[in-house]
Amino acid sequence: MSVPYSAGLENVIASETGISYLDVDNEEIVLRGYDLLELAKRRTYLDVVGLLLDGALPTPPQRTAIEEKLKSEYGFPQEVLTMLQMLPINANRMDILRTGISAIASYDLELEDRSHGANYRKAIRLLAKVPQIVANGFRVNARLPLVEPRGDLSYTGNFLYMITGLEPTETEEKIFDQSLVVYSEHEMPNSTFAARVIASTQSDMYGALTGAVASLKGTLHGGANEAVMQMLLEAGSADGVEALMLGKLQRKERIMGFGHRVYMKKADPRALLMKEALAEIAEVRNRAELYEMCVIGEELMRREKGLYPNLDYYAAPVYYLLGIPIELFTPVFLAARTIGVCAHVIEQHENNRLFRPRVLYRGPRNLHPDN
Amino acid sequence: MSVPYSAGLENVIASETGISYLDVDNEEIVLRGYDLLELAKRRTYLDVVGLLLDGALPTPPQRTAIEEKLKSEYGFPQEVLTMLQMLPINANRMDILRTGISAIASYDLELEDRSHGANYRKAIRLLAKVPQIVANGFRVNARLPLVEPRGDLSYTGNFLYMITGLEPTETEEKIFDQSLVVYSEHEMPNSTFAARVIASTQSDMYGALTGAVASLKGTLHGGANEAVMQMLLEAGSADGVEALMLGKLQRKERIMGFGHRVYMKKADPRALLMKEALAEIAEVRNRAELYEMCVIGEELMRREKGLYPNLDYYAAPVYYLLGIPIELFTPVFLAARTIGVCAHVIEQHENNRLFRPRVLYRGPRNLHPDN
Repeated sequence: MSVPYSAGLENVIASETGISYLDVDNEEIVLRGYDLLELAKRRTYLDVVGLLLDGALPTPPQRTAIEEKLKSEYGFPQEVLTMLQMLPINANRMDILRTGISAIASYDLELEDRSHGANYRKAIRLLAKVPQIVANGFRVNARLPLVEPRGDLSYTGNFLYMITGLEPTETEEKIFDQSLVVYSEHEMPNSTFAARVIASTQSDMYGALTGAVASLKGTLHGGANEAVMQMLLEAGSADGVEALMLGKLQRKERIMGFGHRVYMKKADPRALLMKEALAEIAEVRNRAELYEMCVIGEELMRREKGLYPNLDYYAAPVYYLLGIPIELFTPVFLAARTIGVCAHVIEQHENNRLFRPRVLYRGPRNLHPDN
Repeated sequence: MSVPYSAGLENVIASETGISYLDVDNEEIVLRGYDLLELAKRRTYLDVVGLLLDGALPTPPQRTAIEEKLKSEYGFPQEVLTMLQMLPINANRMDILRTGISAIASYDLELEDRSHGANYRKAIRLLAKVPQIVANGFRVNARLPLVEPRGDLSYTGNFLYMITGLEPTETEEKIFDQSLVVYSEHEMPNSTFAARVIASTQSDMYGALTGAVASLKGTLHGGANEAVMQMLLEAGSADGVEALMLGKLQRKERIMGFGHRVYMKKADPRALLMKEALAEIAEVRNRAELYEMCVIGEELMRREKGLYPNLDYYAAPVYYLLGIPIELFTPVFLAARTIGVCAHVIEQHENNRLFRPRVLYRGPRNLHPDN
């Protein structure tokens, strides 16, 4: 019991990993040696999938092979969509996603095989099917028409198509792909940590991802991107942002989309990339004022609180202008993060040590029950 | 980054808690000041429910009130049973349980309310409904007739009745109740830890419990009790135990049911109580040889490896003689542990700090993607 207690395990090292690292001093998010922002600008989400699963960036033929493997796993158990339709209408979208991922586990014949090969194939299956649960789980529960996955579109294009029902333009697909890259992996956030904790009992990859969904739902984690968009819509205008945020600060209410446990008083590099993407999509959509609102909010928070925007702050309006329903912002985050979580589960299973910490007991002692 | 790395967070303090503590030096499992073993011998599972939820042992009228509250929540959404029937036949029982708990979340109107009162009521609802998912989720998936909960039986009696379909005798109910007490809470095992990690994002109690189910499924955690029983059945006799275990030791195979991260080279006090329970139920069932087999296995492991049995080693044959199907051993463990997990989620929500540890990065640096 020689280790000092740090609430929330702040600054405690929970794992060794070869997957990723937040180098805060150098403002770099390292993914298997590469700068995540360089990957987002110069490569695609499927390249990152290959990098995380295989340990090296794929060559163009290797990338094509990964995409073909993904498309060959587009088949989806109809029963699970029927199950999600039976949930109460307008159930929380993250709860639909959690139940859907939990349910499709039972259809995977390699579920209990934790070998590298089986885990790799399960990761591919999850990458193929999670976007379908996000899009069609939502649709079936909201009594909207289902959308079949289209193998003629790219993996990323198909995901956006299934959400909006519209074939994306090249610009829309590029921006959505960049968002998937920056959401793909981020060292040891709560959801990835939950998944590794679960996997360390030798439980299966689907169960670990189910735990990650449950974690990501929380407003202190993935739920933040939806809260940001609700705030922007409530503000309504550049003047409105100023008034709304100052009011919240006065009432000491939390403003979502700012600050980050690890980055502390530095900018989240991912936010800057999504800020550029927002400028681009706002121009295409003739919604320049949404970009201006965000910049005003960013400057206000730096001035008043010394806080910088995190990824969610700029990803939220980007998703809004891409036509993604607000209630799917966090499910889309989870879909993008699926590859990161799966890579961590694979790593955990290959060099496993059961997570089993201790506590600092603050209760009474030596009480005796008289019967 | 001043904290040394400890794989699996061994000996790392993850939380302050007033709920429980493993005092290994004094061989005492402390539950809010009481010795868990004394509680198991002199009180009932519902007393422990009251103790964990309210912070004090209930008076007899208070215990009656808790039982009435539980029975008033026996109502169960039929849709969820239909959903579990739609899963592939013979799906893993822990996966059925995980999907069922995830699904019933959407029926709780207080799901997103994390106040103490709402969390308390959700814990009661989960305690009322989880045993039904264990029993009827299994039944509906295995195409066995459903069993309706019976309000005229005690909470514990009804749980065992729903599993076996038979009204338990007084001895059976007493032994099953003791097993629920010893499984109820155990400081910071992997499943409880997973639930607290998830809850710390401000996610909801059902999601946290879903993560705990995923964790408990693993063979290094709850899955161990089923593995123990399979081994005993494979051994078949006292001589068989000796031969089977020695063979496993020679082949360096793991033998489940022995050792524990925290107890290390000491006995698990809960195992001793279940050993007494096994002696009693084995005599009632005229299966003294099963008790003898277990004792031989215990002595062999102490002699050969210096290892002591843990709870699962003796709970497994007790459950077997109570007529519980082996595939439900781990689901029953989860049902008993539900109260412990819920108490930890309540405590986490009331004094929250997001879990967000760091990593020791072991991968390459400074690679550059050429596009």
